[in-house]
Amino acid sequence: MTVTTLAVRPDTLVVTWADGITTPFPSIWLRDNCPSGLHPETHERLLDLLTIDETPVLISAALVGEMAMLSFADGHISRMPIALMNAHRPGQPSFDAANQKAQLWRADHGATNISRYAAALILADNFALKDWMQKTETFGLTIIDHLQDCTNAGVEIAERIGFLRATNFGSTFEVLNKPDPNNLAYTSVALPLHTDLPNQEVPPGYQFLHCLANEATGGGSLFADGFAMAEDLRSEDPDAFRLLCDIAIPFRFHDDSADIRVHRPVITLGPKGEVIEIRYNAHLAGIFDMPAEIMPAYYRAYRAYMAKTQDPKYRLTLKLKAGEMVVFDNRRILHGRDSFDPSTGFRHLHGCYVDRGEFFSCLRILSRKSHVDIAS
Amino acid sequence: MTVTTLAVRPDTLVVTWADGITTPFPSIWLRDNCPSGLHPETHERLLDLLTIDETPVLISAALVGEMAMLSFADGHISRMPIALMNAHRPGQPSFDAANQKAQLWRADHGATNISRYAAALILADNFALKDWMQKTETFGLTIIDHLQDCTNAGVEIAERIGFLRATNFGSTFEVLNKPDPNNLAYTSVALPLHTDLPNQEVPPGYQFLHCLANEATGGGSLFADGFAMAEDLRSEDPDAFRLLCDIAIPFRFHDDSADIRVHRPVITLGPKGEVIEIRYNAHLAGIFDMPAEIMPAYYRAYRAYMAKTQDPKYRLTLKLKAGEMVVFDNRRILHGRDSFDPSTGFRHLHGCYVDRGEFFSCLRILSRKSHVDIAS
Repeated sequence: MTVTTLAVRPDTLVVTWADGITTPFPSIWLRDNCPSGLHPETHERLLDLLTIDETPVLISAALVGEMAMLSFADGHISRMPIALMNAHRPGQPSFDAANQKAQLWRADHGATNISRYAAALILADNFALKDWMQKTETFGLTIIDHLQDCTNAGVEIAERIGFLRATNFGSTFEVLNKPDPNNLAYTSVALPLHTDLPNQEVPPGYQFLHCLANEATGGGSLFADGFAMAEDLRSEDPDAFRLLCDIAIPFRFHDDSADIRVHRPVITLGPKGEVIEIRYNAHLAGIFDMPAEIMPAYYRAYRAYMAKTQDPKYRLTLKLKAGEMVVFDNRRILHGRDSFDPSTGFRHLHGCYVDRGEFFSCLRILSRKSHVDIAS
Repeated sequence: MTVTTLAVRPDTLVVTWADGITTPFPSIWLRDNCPSGLHPETHERLLDLLTIDETPVLISAALVGEMAMLSFADGHISRMPIALMNAHRPGQPSFDAANQKAQLWRADHGATNISRYAAALILADNFALKDWMQKTETFGLTIIDHLQDCTNAGVEIAERIGFLRATNFGSTFEVLNKPDPNNLAYTSVALPLHTDLPNQEVPPGYQFLHCLANEATGGGSLFADGFAMAEDLRSEDPDAFRLLCDIAIPFRFHDDSADIRVHRPVITLGPKGEVIEIRYNAHLAGIFDMPAEIMPAYYRAYRAYMAKTQDPKYRLTLKLKAGEMVVFDNRRILHGRDSFDPSTGFRHLHGCYVDRGEFFSCLRILSRKSHVDIAS
């Protein structure tokens, strides 16, 4: 977008763009973001903001090529790129390649319509990597198939994105029937739909569950879109939705070596009121501790969400085969499994997590034009 | 606390304690937390809450030893420990050994009064470990001394608490003058007071900076209590304080391989309005993007906090010696350093982080009576 006029007020530069829209830029913002104040190598800000006036006085502004030449009363002359001002208009979110809009889904989407990607392609090609990651962000759940038959094959895919998120269960974890389990995942019982580790300050972001064997009777996987269930609850019962957003409840995991607890709401909203996170895990929910007078209404709201997690309307079911891996947003998608009979065969999943921070960073890097060009 | 009477209403049990206080327990809470609904090994909840009524009807209650025997209309009989009800009275926070109240400090505390602990003691003794961790939580900053002269000596202390937090800079990092720096820490310039990695969804919790060499001229360390500065701002300028709590600003780090961004406020409050987190880093703050009409007031508020970070009233200065390590809450304590002259000697710090989740978990485990007994 090009500029048609620059109007100087002492405390503000008013820019009129080619489409007729005007944008005011306070003079303090112009000085704070003057390119002369950044370290040439790290691009971090070196300017000490307190060395300039609270309201620098702007004297004149002129368009010179793709720059605005700005003169201030204290003698400073700033060469401010028009592109920078255009990309950072006050009050408007700037572009973020990692910001993919969630596409909500329910059972009618069909398990066979979950997007699938071949492991070899994701490993070899940055365009495929980016496409798969965008699909995983928008839909919350994808499948990678044709993984090699070794424990590390899923981790290798995850590490294309970034380093693994360590938890008290380690950097990777084995989902199989164990003696002395400290977690229901390590038993053969059914696991109702849940998100993992809601007892952590930030639960793990993207989860990778690589199936190495699934020969036992039972043990099918279940998935549901926690955002879709939350949005339906918002429409059907706004008071219940509001309680699940407003009231923090305790979550806790504890065993011999860990005792990890937080209070957080089941539903977290973003700045525009959109659902950005679900924490739902009936077996790790702690003992509710809101005031007694709120408790009956809260239980009603909580049960309303719980009822959706048991409603086939929301549920996709599939039985993972050896060599397949589900990848899903653990802070959006609820997962679970049917019980299985360990006497009928071996069931072994190998799992790990990569957090949202690393996931989004990777998407931004892949979206830099030069990066994808190099990779192609 | 013992019980004097149990009064049965259909939807509530009203408990009168020995001190005369009464506490209502909704019947749904009593059923949800009945010990019969927990897995015997993992202690996770197995009860499906939807299999019981929204308001279970309570018929009778009797004290039997240290249990309340509760009979419900659907035939269920619950043996509910009095101790459990006492520890989890609705509306009252339950005890948490990790919840140490912050003791705010300013320059008049004096750098020589920072608590010091010998590395060998922390490594050998669980009581000393717990004492040091509690001091580090309450004061935000302690020093470990007499570390062995090897790169891993500080990490060994950190790993007494839990596993290290990995970031885009790795699991550990070297603070020294490097060619092609991607971060001001890797130069010899002064670093104004800041918290690390405010561009992360959750910035690292406790930071460990082990000094291996500090022979250059300059390079002294600076620390300030970000909570104290925030509380003073709250008293002096409540409007500025409120803006720093309410307005999320962008933080961003980017180099060739990472682009990690969030929007968050400078000051985060806890459920009682207490300050629980500071994000302040002038060189990683992104380009402010609030609406132009808010911007001048926001800049005034931001500069008011910034002025405190430059005010000697808040600052402790010390020059770390080889074999010393500072440990501090990176989400509370701001740190910085004076510039140094790399031609006059070598300066080398080795750093790592352990997150609040692992720190608090460790404090809870150490506070279990049996655990400390075993260690002693």
